[in-house]
Order: sequence, then structure tokens, then C-alpha cells
Amino acid sequence: MGALGRLVLGKPTSQFAPRMKPRALRIRYALPLLAPDALSSVAYAPDEILLTLAAAGMAGMALSPWVGLAIAAVMAVVIASYRQTIKVYPGGGDYTVAKENLGLLAGGLVGGAAMVDSLLTVAVSVSAGAQYFAAVVPGVEDHTTAVAITLVTALTVLMLRGVKALDTTVILAVYAFIAALGVTAATGGIEALIGTLPAGPAQGLEVVPSAGLESGLTVLGAAFLGLRAFSSGAVALTGVQTISTGVGTFREPQERNAARSLAFLGIACAALLIGTLALAREVGAVFVADPATQLRYPSGKPVGADFHQEPILAQIAETVFAGARPIFVVVTGLVGLLLILAASSAFRWVPTLMSMLAHDEFMPKQFYRRSDRRVAAHGIITLGLGSAVLIYLMGASVTQLVQLYIVGVFLSFTISQLGMLRHWNAALPLAKTAPERRRMAGARAVNACGLVLTAVALVIVVITKFTHGAWISLGLVGCAFWFMVSVRRHYRRVAGELKLPPGDRTDLGLPSRVHGIVLVSAMNRATARAIAYARSTRPATLEAVTVAVDSARVWELRRGWDRARVPVTLRILDSPGREITRPLIEYITAVRRRRPRDLVMLYIPEKVVRHWWERWLHNRSAARLTSRLRHVRGVVVATVPWQLDTDPAAAE
Amino acid sequence: MGALGRLVLGKPTSQFAPRMKPRALRIRYALPLLAPDALSSVAYAPDEILLTLAAAGMAGMALSPWVGLAIAAVMAVVIASYRQTIKVYPGGGDYTVAKENLGLLAGGLVGGAAMVDSLLTVAVSVSAGAQYFAAVVPGVEDHTTAVAITLVTALTVLMLRGVKALDTTVILAVYAFIAALGVTAATGGIEALIGTLPAGPAQGLEVVPSAGLESGLTVLGAAFLGLRAFSSGAVALTGVQTISTGVGTFREPQERNAARSLAFLGIACAALLIGTLALAREVGAVFVADPATQLRYPSGKPVGADFHQEPILAQIAETVFAGARPIFVVVTGLVGLLLILAASSAFRWVPTLMSMLAHDEFMPKQFYRRSDRRVAAHGIITLGLGSAVLIYLMGASVTQLVQLYIVGVFLSFTISQLGMLRHWNAALPLAKTAPERRRMAGARAVNACGLVLTAVALVIVVITKFTHGAWISLGLVGCAFWFMVSVRRHYRRVAGELKLPPGDRTDLGLPSRVHGIVLVSAMNRATARAIAYARSTRPATLEAVTVAVDSARVWELRRGWDRARVPVTLRILDSPGREITRPLIEYITAVRRRRPRDLVMLYIPEKVVRHWWERWLHNRSAARLTSRLRHVRGVVVATVPWQLDTDPAAAE
Repeated sequence: MGALGRLVLGKPTSQFAPRMKPRALRIRYALPLLAPDALSSVAYAPDEILLTLAAAGMAGMALSPWVGLAIAAVMAVVIASYRQTIKVYPGGGDYTVAKENLGLLAGGLVGGAAMVDSLLTVAVSVSAGAQYFAAVVPGVEDHTTAVAITLVTALTVLMLRGVKALDTTVILAVYAFIAALGVTAATGGIEALIGTLPAGPAQGLEVVPSAGLESGLTVLGAAFLGLRAFSSGAVALTGVQTISTGVGTFREPQERNAARSLAFLGIACAALLIGTLALAREVGAVFVADPATQLRYPSGKPVGADFHQEPILAQIAETVFAGARPIFVVVTGLVGLLLILAASSAFRWVPTLMSMLAHDEFMPKQFYRRSDRRVAAHGIITLGLGSAVLIYLMGASVTQLVQLYIVGVFLSFTISQLGMLRHWNAALPLAKTAPERRRMAGARAVNACGLVLTAVALVIVVITKFTHGAWISLGLVGCAFWFMVSVRRHYRRVAGELKLPPGDRTDLGLPSRVHGIVLVSAMNRATARAIAYARSTRPATLEAVTVAVDSARVWELRRGWDRARVPVTLRILDSPGREITRPLIEYITAVRRRRPRDLVMLYIPEKVVRHWWERWLHNRSAARLTSRLRHVRGVVVATVPWQLDTDPAAAE
Repeated sequence: MGALGRLVLGKPTSQFAPRMKPRALRIRYALPLLAPDALSSVAYAPDEILLTLAAAGMAGMALSPWVGLAIAAVMAVVIASYRQTIKVYPGGGDYTVAKENLGLLAGGLVGGAAMVDSLLTVAVSVSAGAQYFAAVVPGVEDHTTAVAITLVTALTVLMLRGVKALDTTVILAVYAFIAALGVTAATGGIEALIGTLPAGPAQGLEVVPSAGLESGLTVLGAAFLGLRAFSSGAVALTGVQTISTGVGTFREPQERNAARSLAFLGIACAALLIGTLALAREVGAVFVADPATQLRYPSGKPVGADFHQEPILAQIAETVFAGARPIFVVVTGLVGLLLILAASSAFRWVPTLMSMLAHDEFMPKQFYRRSDRRVAAHGIITLGLGSAVLIYLMGASVTQLVQLYIVGVFLSFTISQLGMLRHWNAALPLAKTAPERRRMAGARAVNACGLVLTAVALVIVVITKFTHGAWISLGLVGCAFWFMVSVRRHYRRVAGELKLPPGDRTDLGLPSRVHGIVLVSAMNRATARAIAYARSTRPATLEAVTVAVDSARVWELRRGWDRARVPVTLRILDSPGREITRPLIEYITAVRRRRPRDLVMLYIPEKVVRHWWERWLHNRSAARLTSRLRHVRGVVVATVPWQLDTDPAAAE
């Protein structure tokens, strides 16, 4: 990365250094650290539910509490399932569950989905964050894409540099977020009860039903619309799996603490979702895909292109704290902050994920060392770039990005539940006591229930959203899967090729003699050092070779050679085409042909420069020669460095 | 350059292979090969002269024959001067003249100017070519920038691939161009004499004088305008120096043949320039900077924005061959072709120029080997990109590009003439006979005359054109000069640092012992080969070292080690941070510290892959380690390649 990298990244911090011992935090610290992902998805889920239902106008929006309840019910089952996962595979997560029970390929699929989900976590969270930003800062409503891409860039640079006290910020932000929403709900509830709740910004606006739904909903139509709203709102479930991959954060008893935390988190999310939907109804909040055509004043006049539609939580806060704009700004700002922190957790998770995948050869092996700053930087930059591209392509539309997001999430959910089911099926016959068998059967029932629900949700999502972007998700997951499988196949093939035949020791047989060649171009100290080093290895034969590109320089070299009384023969290769590489390759191949069992050691003096741009001025021919000689068997290239212009103290 | 390079470049051709013997062509072949540069500049010079004079309306344009004669006169002197240069420095050119007589820095300045001139030769010629293209093909008038950039791109790719029979094309095109213009001039002259010359496309149009010049020209005003027109038209002189750098193309007696060719070329250019200006007057051709405001119909109505102004030669051909459009198309097409070929000659010249500069360490030394396809490709791509950028910035305006061009050309002219003057001053006292002294004095007079004229022209050009773009040229030449001087200073500094102290043989002293280390990560055939090779060099001590990043893998390595009964100790380095590079660097520095007079030979097994993208999957840690170890003294890194998945026949 060099100078530019250091400029952007600053001094190394320890954020990617692996922790030698688990962090062992109390629930009150560990839970908020892992919560932003799950909580933030509840911030934009109500918007998506109402937006889908708005297709049937006011009649559709009346369905919202039922959709909320359905999602809360599925959430309860999914959380119960993940509590089983935590107990059986503490710290493993979906990838481990799939890999252990369904084979490496299923693991690869979950891994691919997880990679795509990280991209989308960032894209969705930041796009939603940009909406809340626009609700508070006037004048940026029409530039949310630019705002979101700026936020992603800033986040990428921050994560590359490392953020001190990020953990503390997350913990404080989560409690502040919950407190803020609690206060909002309490204030709003009381105001609604005593009848002092003011009119919301959208109160009185009418929602125009889509073509074909003007005459109200049939039962079938309502069911279908409800399913679509459910599949959009199901995004509220994303993030619950985070706890199952972060069990190591909790203190002992880890599994129990993690499982309890997961239950708390589920309750908080469900309460938040249902509370938000209820309050949205009270304040008459509306959220539609295209305000200009879907909203109209009671007079029947459309609101027009200038109308700025705020996200639901902002509408609620604006209504509840109608007289106190500072409070509204704080609440909205906290929602935005939590969304950004959710994105930052994806940045922290990706190096770990890639390291897990690299361990199973699904990723280039350098990613295994996630503590390596450069390696982590590759993951972070890829994530930042990828999510910026997604935001740009989708115009920072939360609605469109959510469609992509849920497919990957529910794919992981379903495969992971299937894995758990297989786990219990295999474990049940081994149970020794009746209570143990009963406990396992119960757990299996929970996971089976989870499998059915998540599979149904996945099918609904794919069917109802296929043309809305689910195909993009499936394509991305497919690409990631193909990449990972290709990498693994490559490593497997190489390992097979390199495998030592058992008992056969021919590979350890020594070459009969060593023939040393020193490549020289001028008689100087670098050349002298290369010759001295080559001589000290005492090869059977040693010669120096130069290519005659310029006769004046060859003459000068010979004079210097004689003057320094170098005890090595100098061979001058003719180069009719003024080439350097070809005559040398030809000569070395000729030497090899004469004595095929010999080893050729080629010593190349190398000038080591201080600045990266100086590299362009030196060692070009040597670099090319080295890269060509790699393909010639029986040749070892040894570079003898000469450190130019360096501080002797630093060099040692 | 890899696969992409091969795709674009195709199979290597021999166009950059240096010729072992001079080509020794007859004048009839050698002269046209070197002529396009000079002839093509005469194609756009009349346009620039008329354009400048048009500032004073019709009265100004009446001055054009006088300006043409002045340029022809200067051309005669410059050509006489270059005939001297050819005799004294056959095959040298301005760079050699400046370097030999005025020192390396003056040579560097000429070299920098020559680099910038190559860029501008391409930019000007192709932009002018695009004008002629637009004169023949309707509908592209408003897209000359796009046309010019497309042409540059095509030319770059063609030159990279190599063009077969380019020489033949050039020779034929030059004769066809001269024949076409001869026929045009003869036909036009006869038509004018017998009074059948039809009205030209611009006949009857009035040229509006610029503000301040409406009331006619004062003597001073006419002189100043004439000077400005002269400085624009002086572009006709560019290209005459080409012959002085291509003396090797002629057969013996080379110098005499080259000098005669130069005289022929001068006569042809002068005739062409004066003939074009005369015919332009006959057909009433006009050429102005901004037709929409500067041209009006006799009725006083401006011609408007839709008016398309053709270059002068096209206007002449259109008038002379008014009844025979195919002939017009052929003549115009030949002019365009010659312009493109002039650009192609710059592409062929740049690798030679860079090689000359690299020989004097003004360029990275790899450019010395101009026959090397990759090296030549760097020059060609730089030239193509640079000229495309210039064309884009100047909107393919020939007028603006010409302003930039002449500054560099006259800078070279002037320095070169100054060099010749110094040459004669130094040579004159050594003359032995009176006739020799007289001859030298005469030659000195010619060069002095050339110096005065080119210096005056340079001053005029810089003064009258400074704000029109001359400052850009001077800036570019300055940058090129700075770059070249920096490169040379770097090489000089390195050479000084590496210089062997005379008589001192300490640099050839041998290290006391060799300590061999083999870097291993898994027990496989690549590792086995590295160990075998390391053992065959019989170091004083040999050990194998691995970094414990993953305990399972270390355990597997130890098992394989024991099973293969490797006769080398395996040392396992701890890595608390899962890093690879740092523990190794620390270990090697510790070894060095214990025995500072020993040499450490580090053997690294390297997997050689077949496809470039597979490189990303292997040897990453080794590459990083190697690049870090370069800075540690007394360590030699030897890479032991293992060719993966290769055809055994190809590998040998």
C-alpha cells in the first residue's frame, strides 16, 4: 500500500488484532454491542410494510397491525431456533451449522449469502441513515444517493484507520436509541390517550390505491397484499443471527447468557415493531413508493413533486414532539446514528467471515490472517466499494435494497435451520436418557418449526419479489458461491499435485552439482557483493555472465573486472537484437541441457531503492528475467540486495 | 503485458527490431520515407497564415504571398544550415549537435523539446487530418475532436501491433500526394489563365475585420500582423530536421545524398506553400478562426453557425475539380492520408529518441533497448495518450495546437544552430589549409545566419503567441527537461554510491559462513524440492523454519516431516498475532545479530501458476517477506520454483 496507504490509514491500531482470550462481557455490555444490526432493521421495516400496503390505499394500511403481529410471531420462532443453535454450536453461526450438517457446499452457499448480506447491510443501513439525515438537515432531500455514498466512503476510511472507543460508542448509542424510542412511545401513548396528540405531517393526506385496487380489497387480494407486506417487513428479522456468531463476547456461562440476550433482543425488536406500527396509525403516518402520484390532499389535488416524505420514525417523532424540535432532532439523529453503527458492524464482521471462509479454502488463503492489517483492508475496501456501487445502482432506495437484502438473509436462515434439523435427527438416536431424548425432540420441533416458517418466508419473498430485485440477490449469491467454489477447487488441485507420494523419497534427492552464475552489467559494489556471496556458497563451478548490449559498456566492465582482479571468469553473451532476457534464457537453458541433473543458481545483484517511484529506474531487466526463469526447471534465482542511500542503522 | 496485451498487440512483428546494417536506400525511396513530416506541415501552414491575416479582413489577406515568400526565405536558410549539420554530424540530429557543442544540459533541453514536439506532431497532424476527413465525409463536421481521438487510438493500436508494408505505403502516399497537388496546381493554373476557373465555395464571402482594424491597416499594424502570420506559418518549417536524424536511411555517399534530399525537400515545400497561397487567392479561399462571426455574405448577413469551413487545400481542390467530385475526394483523401502518416512517423521516431536519451541516462535505462517490444510499447502508449489528451484539451483545434507546436520546434532549431556555430568556432583554428578555412568560414556564416533567423522567429513566436498557448509548450518542455535531469541525477548518484574504491578489494571479501534457512508451510513436493536444493548448496548450517499460524497445520507439517524423514531440523516460530512476516524478520535479524559476518541464504519454495489471476492465490506472504528482507543486509533470498500444472515439454 505504501505511502498513499499510510496517508489514508494512519498509524496501525489494534482493532483487527485477534483477542487472545474471549472478551467475557456482562450481558449489559455484550448485548448492545451485538444489537445494532437487529435493532436497525426494525427502524426501516415499518416503512416497507406500510409502503406495500399503501397499494390498496387506506384500506390496505389498516392491515398493518396484523402484518406486524405475523412478523413478531415468526420472529419468536426464529429466535427460539437460534437459541438452540447457540447451545449446540456456540460461536459458530449459520456457516458452521450448514458446513457441519449439510456439507461444505452448503456451507459455501451460506458463506456466499453472508458475503452478499454484508454488502447489503451496509447499503441498506446507510441509505436509511441518509433518509433520517435528510429529515433533519433541510435541502439534501434530493441528494440522498450522494449523501449515502459520502457516508459509505467516510465509514470505509474510518474503519481502515480504526476507530478508538467504537465499542463504547455502540453501547451508548444502543441504550440511547432504546431510551429515545421508549420516551417517544410513552409520550405518544399518553398524548393519544388524553387526546392531545397533534396532527402528524401526513394527517389528512389520502393514499391513492393502485390501478385495479380502487374498489377495495377482496379476501384473496388482502391475503396476497398481506403476504407481500409480510415479506417486506420480514427484514425486521435480520440481525438476530449476529448473536449466534458473537457468543464469544459473553462471559461464562456463555451459551446461557447469549441465549438469554437473544430472547431480550427478540422482545425488544418485536415491541419496537408493533409499537411503531401502532403509533404510526395514531399519528396518521403514511409512507408510499411515489408520493407525487400516490398521495393527494383531501381536496383531491396530488401533493406534487415538491412533497418530501419522511421515514415513519421521523414522522412519529415530529408529531409526538411537535412543540419541541430539539427533541425531534435528537431522536431522529439517534435513529440515524444507530443505522450507521449497524453498517459499521458489517465492516467489523467481514474480515472474520473471510477468515472463516479462508480457513476452509473458500477464499484466498491470505484472508485467513484477519489480524493482518493489509488483509483486513482488502476486505473493508471491497465491502465499501461494493456497497457504494449497490447504493448508486439502486439510487439509495431503501425499498429496493431491502428486496435484495431479505433474500440472502432468509436463504441463510433456511439452510441453517435445515442443518439444525439434520443435527437433531443424527443426535436423537444417540440420546441416552428419556429426558435427554425429550429435550432433543423438543429442540428438533422448534428447529423444524423454524425451518418451515423461514422456508415459507423465503419462498414468499422470492416469488413476490423476484422481479423487484430478488433475482439480483440470487445472482450475487450465485457469483460469490461460484467464486468460493473455484478458489477451493484450485487449492485442492494444487494440493493434490504437490502431494508427496508416501514412502517415495525421490523428491528429496539432491542435484548432482551446483553451477553458479552471477549476472553482471557493470563493475560496482553491488556486483562485487553478489560475486562474494556467490563464491561463499562454494558452487562446483562459478561464472559471471553479461549481455553485450552496448559495446562501450562491456569494454568498461571488462576493464573494471581486470582491475578488481575478480577471481571468476566473465562470459560475454552476444545480443544481436540488443535484448537482455532472451540471450540469458537461451544460455541458461543450454547449460541445463548439457548437465540436466545439475542445479543452476543464478545470483542477481539488486539495487534496493528508497522510494517506490525509483523502482521504475532499476532492476527492470532482472525482474523480467526472474519472472521468465520461474518456468525453467532446475534454476534457482537468488537476489543479492544492495541497499542504496539508506541509513545504516535502519538497515540492520 | 500478459493476455490483454497479446490480444491488442497480436503476434510480435519485427518493426522495432534494430537493423544490423543501414538500410542504404536510393534517394527516390529514402527521401519520401522521411518526407511526410515536412510535407504535411505545409498542408496546414496556409490555413494558419490566412487565419491570422483575416483579422484585418480582405486587406490583411492580400499580404499572404509576402508572408509565404518570407517563410520560404527562412526555410532556404534553415535548410542550408541543416545541410551543414548533416555533413558534420551524420545521423546525429539536433540532440547530438546540442550535446556535443553546448553540453549535456543543452542536449537535455533539446531532448525535452523533441519529446514535446512528438506529442504535438501527432496532435496537430491528426487534428488536421480530421478536418480533411470532415471535408469529404458529411455529418462529422461538429465531431472533429471525437474523430481525431478515434484516429489517435487506432494509430496507437496499429503501431503497437506493427504495420506491415508501412514503408511502402509511405513512399507511395508521398508520391501520390505530390502528384495530386501537382495536378491540382497545373489544372487550377491553366483554368485561371484561360478564365474557366469556377467560383470557389467561399467566393464572394466577406471577411469582417476584427475590432480596431476595420479602418484598414497602418504600416506598423501591417508589419505586426505580418509577423504574427509569419510566426504561425513558420510551422511549415517543421519536419525539415527529420532528414538530419535519418541519414542512415540513405545509401553511400550518405551525407551527400541526405544533403541533396534535404535541398529537394526544401524546394518541394517552398513550392507547395507558395503555390497553395497563390491558388487560394485565385479561388477566393478564406479561412478564419470563427466563421460564424467573421464571415458574411455580400448582403452583409453573417453566414451563421451552420456554415462549415473547409481547410484551404480542400477549398482549392473543390473549386479546381468542381465538375468532378471523385477527383476532389481522392485529392482531399491523399492530403488526409499524408497527415496521418506524418503522425505515424512520430510514433516510429519516439522509441529511437527515448533510446538516445536513455543512453545518456536522461530516461530510465530500459528505454535504451528500443528494439524491446515492451519498452517500445511504453513509448507508443505514452505518445498516444499524451496526444489524445492534448487534442481533447484543445478541442482538436489545429490553430491552437500549432501555436504550441512551433515553440518547441524553433527552440530546437535555435539551440541546434547555436551548437553548430560553436562547432565551427572551435574547428576553425584547427583548419590546416586556406580552402578548408574558407569552407568552414562559409559554413559558419550559414549557421550564424540560421541562428539569427531561427532565434528571431523563436522570439517572435514566443512574444506573439505567449498567451495563445506558447506558455503551455514552454511548461511542457520544462517538465520534460526536469524529468530527464532528475532521472540523470538519480543514476549519477547511484553510480557514485556504487563505485568501487580503486585498489580496495574489501567488497570482494567473502562472508565467513553460510547459514541456510528453508521457509516451509506444508510438507509437499515444492517444499521437498526447496530442501533438496538448499542441501545441495552445502551451507555450513541448514534449518527449516515455519510460522505457527494454525496449530492444526503445524501438527500436520510435523507429521509429514517425520514421515518423509527430512534430514533437516524444523524450527517452529510462534506467532501470537497470526502474522507471518514479522516473526520471520525478527528471527532472521536475530540470526544475523548472533553472527554478523555470516551470510543468511533464505530458500523460499514458490508455486508457479499458469494464469495471472491464480497468482493472487499463492505466494502472497513470500512476496511480502521478500520485499521486506531486501532492506536487511547480509540476507539473500533464493526462490525455488515449482511449476504447477505445466506441460513438461514446455517447461524444459
